[in-house]
Amino acid sequence: MKILKGNLIYGQSGGPTSVINSSMAGVFTEALKRSDVIDKVYGAANGIVGILNEKFYDIGEEDPEELLLLKTTPSSALGSCRYMLADVEEDETDYLRILEIFKKYNIRYFLYNGGNDSMDTCNKISKYLQSRNYECRIIGIPKTIDNDLVGTDHCPGFGSAAKYIATTVMEVSLDARVYDIGTITVIEIMGRNAGWLTAASALASYEKHGPDLIYLPEIPFDLEKMMADIESKYKSNNNVIVCISEGVRTKEGKLIPELIGELSTDSFGHKQLGGSAQILADYIKERMNCKVRGIELSLMQRCAAHLASKTDVEEAFRTGQEGVRAALSGESDIMIGFERPESGPYECIYKKVPLHLVANAEKKVPREWINAAGNHINRPYIDYVLPLIQGESDFVMEEGLPRFANLKKIRGDRR
Amino acid sequence: MKILKGNLIYGQSGGPTSVINSSMAGVFTEALKRSDVIDKVYGAANGIVGILNEKFYDIGEEDPEELLLLKTTPSSALGSCRYMLADVEEDETDYLRILEIFKKYNIRYFLYNGGNDSMDTCNKISKYLQSRNYECRIIGIPKTIDNDLVGTDHCPGFGSAAKYIATTVMEVSLDARVYDIGTITVIEIMGRNAGWLTAASALASYEKHGPDLIYLPEIPFDLEKMMADIESKYKSNNNVIVCISEGVRTKEGKLIPELIGELSTDSFGHKQLGGSAQILADYIKERMNCKVRGIELSLMQRCAAHLASKTDVEEAFRTGQEGVRAALSGESDIMIGFERPESGPYECIYKKVPLHLVANAEKKVPREWINAAGNHINRPYIDYVLPLIQGESDFVMEEGLPRFANLKKIRGDRR
Repeated sequence: MKILKGNLIYGQSGGPTSVINSSMAGVFTEALKRSDVIDKVYGAANGIVGILNEKFYDIGEEDPEELLLLKTTPSSALGSCRYMLADVEEDETDYLRILEIFKKYNIRYFLYNGGNDSMDTCNKISKYLQSRNYECRIIGIPKTIDNDLVGTDHCPGFGSAAKYIATTVMEVSLDARVYDIGTITVIEIMGRNAGWLTAASALASYEKHGPDLIYLPEIPFDLEKMMADIESKYKSNNNVIVCISEGVRTKEGKLIPELIGELSTDSFGHKQLGGSAQILADYIKERMNCKVRGIELSLMQRCAAHLASKTDVEEAFRTGQEGVRAALSGESDIMIGFERPESGPYECIYKKVPLHLVANAEKKVPREWINAAGNHINRPYIDYVLPLIQGESDFVMEEGLPRFANLKKIRGDRR
Repeated sequence: MKILKGNLIYGQSGGPTSVINSSMAGVFTEALKRSDVIDKVYGAANGIVGILNEKFYDIGEEDPEELLLLKTTPSSALGSCRYMLADVEEDETDYLRILEIFKKYNIRYFLYNGGNDSMDTCNKISKYLQSRNYECRIIGIPKTIDNDLVGTDHCPGFGSAAKYIATTVMEVSLDARVYDIGTITVIEIMGRNAGWLTAASALASYEKHGPDLIYLPEIPFDLEKMMADIESKYKSNNNVIVCISEGVRTKEGKLIPELIGELSTDSFGHKQLGGSAQILADYIKERMNCKVRGIELSLMQRCAAHLASKTDVEEAFRTGQEGVRAALSGESDIMIGFERPESGPYECIYKKVPLHLVANAEKKVPREWINAAGNHINRPYIDYVLPLIQGESDFVMEEGLPRFANLKKIRGDRR
């Protein structure tokens, strides 16, 4: 294999997670070890936007202990972006700029951490650089709490979000069932198209402190059917907990705010604002005349690093390391993915997935993992997710509060 | 001191907390040790309602290990209530019933765990039983995340909620500042009349990952002043985090939903529903035309036992123990309270506070602990709260999920 000497740049893209910085720590610690091949290690500010704007940091200037603290620091410490590259046939501007920057800084390794959009970005850049005969090894590092990437058993970030959701729903379930008066609680969980996260609330049911009803976007949403489910549970228990994905929609494609907004112009007389949980809670209260509370797990489900899964943190870190190793061994145009043995105890096996397989595709919860009625989760999902939430991360608390990484962020660009 | 032989009953009242069960564990483990004096130890189902309905559990039947697990189990494991006793002059029914039950089961010790309403309940029952010459020692065990009880330095439940709020606001702050586009985040925190909990978000600012603006109910709310504060911060940072108490109100007494509902009939054309965070977020978005997110910490702030303060858990447990010891030593009509040394290192000193001092009174955040502009918190509050959030509780995780106490709940009544 030919040794490709040059510099490395890494960037973070899309919604942050509890462990994306752990992948970053894996990339940086591994890359900094290989000064025989990689001279400079850069971190792009706000992902690809930082490359386009020539704004990046010299990671060699960072304190190694702070880099390790990134393993337990949530969010994207370099800043993130939601920038989509145009197709090169439509507009070459960004591609020309990236080539210019890569040449100027002799970037020969580009690692990009994100979801399927980011894999698409990697794929486009890779093809373009090849077409211009600029040698650069491009590796995708997966990241998404949504767990919807194809070509991999699961995604870094998902296990920690699932652990947060299960734990929080268990705690809320104890709280919401405390009075002797009837109560309905609606909990809204992230996931626009895939229900992996919402399904994690079933872990709480499995522990006997969880939701009575769970609705995923995989099943067309039927408001009347849900109301019948709730009324039936309320009749028998006097207390109902419903977990619902933000992305549930009717077979016509209407999301909850639109659906209820249309239905309730008479009784409410206005456009509905806010999240699905609150809108649904108000609607149920109006119809059933009982105490209803809406709870949105909001940003907490993707940034609660204090409750991260150790399995997830370690796998995320290793994914970063594996990305650097793959690039150094000559690989390009791949994403680091996971698989697990078909039988026997759980083990995470790292593999290389061609970027084009991952770009712009989405993996959903299999129909057979959802119960026949479409309002709860079957055991195979539990068996799938349990290994991913195992272990508590080595989250650092100092004097009662989190100790997050402090990066110096010394500019590495020479503009 | 006269030894009063008989049975003990304990109940939980009002909103649950992360550590009210720790106080219960303290009561039960201490009372069960004293079988020389206390024959039966009962736990009332849903507080005073369980006494009125003759529904209570025989705690001697519980597994001691499960009783200790209560230390890290959130919510009120016996169930709670929001039942207010009428004044005896108006309606004696409930009092007659309580006397009947206490006589039937030879209840000579009554420990009630709750906030100021519950202390009022204790006080009323105590006076009534005295007037009927029924000897019963009545002890209040404090509990409230709101920290608003008078006669005590702080309240069990507050430290854990404060630790949750500070940690979560730190995590959310990292997440909400991740993009390079302007963002405003409004976080709503509990506290109808007192701002102790909302002020805890200042711990995050003190750690450099916190809110730019904090509004408590202690300061009359001025929407235009807040908008000017937000606009000014947005201009300089392009990113603003605002923490606001659910209880902020104008000098005319209007809460956010009412205030904005009135102001915005033109632009929104409807009554506002949902929590203050969402309503305020929608309003700011309308006025400033930028990305605004509303987050409500909802029930999580009072039930997140996984993030409880060890100091709080241990103080809550000790409060239960001290309650039993005080009763056995002949005390009655008191609540167990705390004080700390006026100088030197923090220490929790347990004391006895007459019930009538606590009943129906509220303690607010001192004006001088809030900054002059009324939009942030001063250092003395930080010094006050820091000792209360120290240490991580011995929360038990089994196979990646919380292991909460399982009580057998064997009925102790003979109805």
